[in-house]
Amino acid sequence: MAVATLGHVELLCPDLEASRDHFHDVLGLEEEFREDGRIYMRAWGDWEAYTLILTESEAPGIGHVALQTETDDDLDEYASRIEDSGYEIEWRSEGSEPHHGRSIRFDSPAGFEFELFHEIDRVEIDDEEKSGLKNQPQKRVDRGAEARRIDHINFFVPNVEEATAWCEDVLDFSLREEIVDEDDGKIATWISVSPLVHEIAFVKAPERQLNHLAYYLPSQGDLYRSADVLRDQQVQLTGGPGKHGVSQAHYLYHLEPSGHQIELFAGGYSILDPNWEPVTWYPDEMQDGLFWWGKEVTYDPEEGQAAPPE
Amino acid sequence: MAVATLGHVELLCPDLEASRDHFHDVLGLEEEFREDGRIYMRAWGDWEAYTLILTESEAPGIGHVALQTETDDDLDEYASRIEDSGYEIEWRSEGSEPHHGRSIRFDSPAGFEFELFHEIDRVEIDDEEKSGLKNQPQKRVDRGAEARRIDHINFFVPNVEEATAWCEDVLDFSLREEIVDEDDGKIATWISVSPLVHEIAFVKAPERQLNHLAYYLPSQGDLYRSADVLRDQQVQLTGGPGKHGVSQAHYLYHLEPSGHQIELFAGGYSILDPNWEPVTWYPDEMQDGLFWWGKEVTYDPEEGQAAPPE
Amino acid sequence: MAVATLGHVELLCPDLEASRDHFHDVLGLEEEFREDGRIYMRAWGDWEAYTLILTESEAPGIGHVALQTETDDDLDEYASRIEDSGYEIEWRSEGSEPHHGRSIRFDSPAGFEFELFHEIDRVEIDDEEKSGLKNQPQKRVDRGAEARRIDHINFFVPNVEEATAWCEDVLDFSLREEIVDEDDGKIATWISVSPLVHEIAFVKAPERQLNHLAYYLPSQGDLYRSADVLRDQQVQLTGGPGKHGVSQAHYLYHLEPSGHQIELFAGGYSILDPNWEPVTWYPDEMQDGLFWWGKEVTYDPEEGQAAPPE
Amino acid sequence: MAVATLGHVELLCPDLEASRDHFHDVLGLEEEFREDGRIYMRAWGDWEAYTLILTESEAPGIGHVALQTETDDDLDEYASRIEDSGYEIEWRSEGSEPHHGRSIRFDSPAGFEFELFHEIDRVEIDDEEKSGLKNQPQKRVDRGAEARRIDHINFFVPNVEEATAWCEDVLDFSLREEIVDEDDGKIATWISVSPLVHEIAFVKAPERQLNHLAYYLPSQGDLYRSADVLRDQQVQLTGGPGKHGVSQAHYLYHLEPSGHQIELFAGGYSILDPNWEPVTWYPDEMQDGLFWWGKEVTYDPEEGQAAPPE
Repeated sequence: MAVATLGHVELLCPDLEASRDHFHDVLGLEEEFREDGRIYMRAWGDWEAYTLILTESEAPGIGHVALQTETDDDLDEYASRIEDSGYEIEWRSEGSEPHHGRSIRFDSPAGFEFELFHEIDRVEIDDEEKSGLKNQPQKRVDRGAEARRIDHINFFVPNVEEATAWCEDVLDFSLREEIVDEDDGKIATWISVSPLVHEIAFVKAPERQLNHLAYYLPSQGDLYRSADVLRDQQVQLTGGPGKHGVSQAHYLYHLEPSGHQIELFAGGYSILDPNWEPVTWYPDEMQDGLFWWGKEVTYDPEEGQAAPPE
Repeated sequence: MAVATLGHVELLCPDLEASRDHFHDVLGLEEEFREDGRIYMRAWGDWEAYTLILTESEAPGIGHVALQTETDDDLDEYASRIEDSGYEIEWRSEGSEPHHGRSIRFDSPAGFEFELFHEIDRVEIDDEEKSGLKNQPQKRVDRGAEARRIDHINFFVPNVEEATAWCEDVLDFSLREEIVDEDDGKIATWISVSPLVHEIAFVKAPERQLNHLAYYLPSQGDLYRSADVLRDQQVQLTGGPGKHGVSQAHYLYHLEPSGHQIELFAGGYSILDPNWEPVTWYPDEMQDGLFWWGKEVTYDPEEGQAAPPE
Repeated sequence: MAVATLGHVELLCPDLEASRDHFHDVLGLEEEFREDGRIYMRAWGDWEAYTLILTESEAPGIGHVALQTETDDDLDEYASRIEDSGYEIEWRSEGSEPHHGRSIRFDSPAGFEFELFHEIDRVEIDDEEKSGLKNQPQKRVDRGAEARRIDHINFFVPNVEEATAWCEDVLDFSLREEIVDEDDGKIATWISVSPLVHEIAFVKAPERQLNHLAYYLPSQGDLYRSADVLRDQQVQLTGGPGKHGVSQAHYLYHLEPSGHQIELFAGGYSILDPNWEPVTWYPDEMQDGLFWWGKEVTYDPEEGQAAPPE
Repeated sequence: MAVATLGHVELLCPDLEASRDHFHDVLGLEEEFREDGRIYMRAWGDWEAYTLILTESEAPGIGHVALQTETDDDLDEYASRIEDSGYEIEWRSEGSEPHHGRSIRFDSPAGFEFELFHEIDRVEIDDEEKSGLKNQPQKRVDRGAEARRIDHINFFVPNVEEATAWCEDVLDFSLREEIVDEDDGKIATWISVSPLVHEIAFVKAPERQLNHLAYYLPSQGDLYRSADVLRDQQVQLTGGPGKHGVSQAHYLYHLEPSGHQIELFAGGYSILDPNWEPVTWYPDEMQDGLFWWGKEVTYDPEEGQAAPPE
């Protein structure tokens, strides 16, 4: 029994069509279909029917974050665990969401709506869009930043320790890296269910909100190419390019038109060691952990999504 | 219970010192220590006390291949399974190998000596060689090809199907990709215990022998830089640079002085989908699967290790 | 007085629209305009109104190759020199070619129609396509291989020495590198009027024809990305990726639909030394000079343009 | 008659041996020889006997900056021009500097000691250090940042317009790019004698001093690798990595132990157009011109060399 990977994320979009155009034209995602006012998208390397849902909304924010379990039976067990931890479960039947098996929705100390599901249809690709690379769902897209697949999500929360511990205890995440304050309190955590350093991260901030959603690029060189693409498209950069200490990934941050911060992400290291101990960065190492080199992220969570780019 | 990763590989070296110098000077590995005529080495990104053992020998070949389990208890269970499958177990006590917990050695249909172990000491790094990147065992080495970590091993065997099935059944490997012949017989398989496409691969050949041992490089750009490094060091290239269809990794092959083929490896894709189905490449797709683009591998297993470079 | 650079090349296309679509969709060039059945194109980094002309024709081949002089007055002086060398001049008045000042056309020992011109209009770019990079004519194109600018042209000729010597003596080219046979006869030459190793190369072959026309990519990483793009578009690769010894450039060769071989080209070195002596590669070094590493070019000039890809 | 290229630069070093070790170990330069207390160095791609001279001194600064002319006779003509412009010439005979023909030294409005020379010995490379790449002086060095060749020098001066105009009028430099203030006064200029955007740049500042000396790296990917190398060596970064708008080059700045700012430099564009017009960046475009993306340079010329890193 395990959570296997980050499945999809629903973003709430004050400017739905502008956000869709940004993800399509500038980041290179595909629009797969629309249903009930939602736009379902995916990156060219994503096998699933969709990995991003854009939902019209008055204010930006996260609709829900869906994690995929290893088996369908895992849902029952995780449902028990979640209820035992004091949170209610909402069961959703197969078909209540498009291309999607049964699922559970629930709150947690993180304070965002999470979902667990197992079944999801693979995307159907027209023959002429299929690649000779049979281990790839379609040809590489040559549009914009050419984002390859969904990678991770990072939340601002006031209760990093509590949110992290719950994901470890209830959802079997492992703590991979952390930044602590002078009193060893957790300021930021990176947790994962796979050799990736994180599918989820928490960063301490007064208000709960999305820090960023990240897409993986095909290579490190593509990360620097994408900086050219974003500048030419007059996208508002909020940090990078640079290299994180934590995760060792190369990064570039920007705001999409509905005000969500998006990270483009490449490289990084994998945790293959079964005896891995969480890496702790102390206060005097925090700057290195966040930004080993390159331009710091200037995104202010206080301003944040309340101030989408003009 | 699971096998977690490829731990280390022992190569038999007719020209021990020349092989050591090659791995150290040309590939950038560190010599950690010598014991009983063996040289223990690791790449700068390997956390373990060693990941490569060079043992003096009359003929080239594989000494043993060690896989690391998730827990120490897993060893007992795997020992039972292996015996149930008809192969004998040799238990080795803690300390019979340096820096190493108890382990089991055994034969299998693959015909090479495998080992399972769990405990291994982490490498001890002098303070001045430690990196500010706390998630990295030491500073990046600036020597030769700068190989970052051990990645996978690929065997020539006459019985690909049998060798593969045994690893799936007994060691919990998953088949990730395969090439089949006109009768759907397996010509080559790539199997893994992690999101890597493979820690082990089997390729059909009349004789059992090492096809290659692979090291991972920090980035795709480093793969092409390494071709310059190897050419300047008069190393005999045997294939690449190029991009495999299978695994989508960028590759470069060469012979080290004792006659073993070594692959430098970068990029590739990760299998995060819990519903992954093995990818099958049919005979007319085999060329694409092996060499999506770039220079083909010309290494002839018939000649192979019998003909080390002069 | 000097020739400054390669200006533009006219290719004769049996399949005009397919070639146009290839240069536009697969290589990322822009179609600027059509006139008199010709299609005028340029790469996104080319400042000129066009750098490639596609002309419908029964057989593939070169229409003409236009070199740009430093000043307009240079045309008169070069006209005299060319006539003195025994070749006739055809003067063309301003406007006889679109966006183009007066020019001279002439034959030479190379046997292809050359042109010298000085004046050419800069391309006019719509405001929304202009880049904030004011030293770049337009935004970087995110389409296909993203070729940045025209680079050089390489000819098969039977008389390499004569063709080379004439370009040196009459047009002030400098010999930069050469491959010689056992008798020190020139098999191939690379000549330039700038720190580029070549704008023109000659390779010995029984018949005169285009060897290849080359476009420069933004970076070395883009060269390897372009191999993915070309494979996904089912383009017939004829060599590479790899690195030439001569010029030290990374290369990838393919055939466009009218049968011309095209090279994508990145990296390389610049000749800034005023005392540069031509580099001579002897017969036993020829393989290194042509292909320092990577996949060799398999294009057969005997087959060549007579056999466009199916 | 022309200036052909930047030949070599002499830096005054309060901490001679530490600077030598930095250029050798961290940047990968070679120490060629020592003479009269000076250390002569070059990068592995430099053909000349040396391109950097380190001279012990109480305070950091520039000893002299040597430009190489196309021919030896050019020296006489430039000497006349310089004297006509009101500056005195000091002739130095062959052998007064090692491996070096006759030369002239002179002041100019820039206020730094310039030198013109033509003859310089090529470096002598031991056979085992020669590369099979015959167009490269030696094997690529695998040490530190692997700087390939000297590229350009950038000066802080109070009189940018005057310094620039003199180099144009007397030394035949061309203005390639410039940043102007509200009154169209020049704040910064980039000037060159070749298709490089600059061998020399001037930036307005109250005091004359070195802004930075730049070395070219083999590729864009190497620039980002070098950031890892410099961080691991605890070098004080002063800007980047990033991409300049002007020159379009990727950059990384740091301080060497004697307090000089050094730039590592990769990519960029070439000026092949004989009708090139200088590109002017206006005040509201200055930020884009200096830092198209990436981390800004924080080096303060007021502090500057007076405050070498501790």
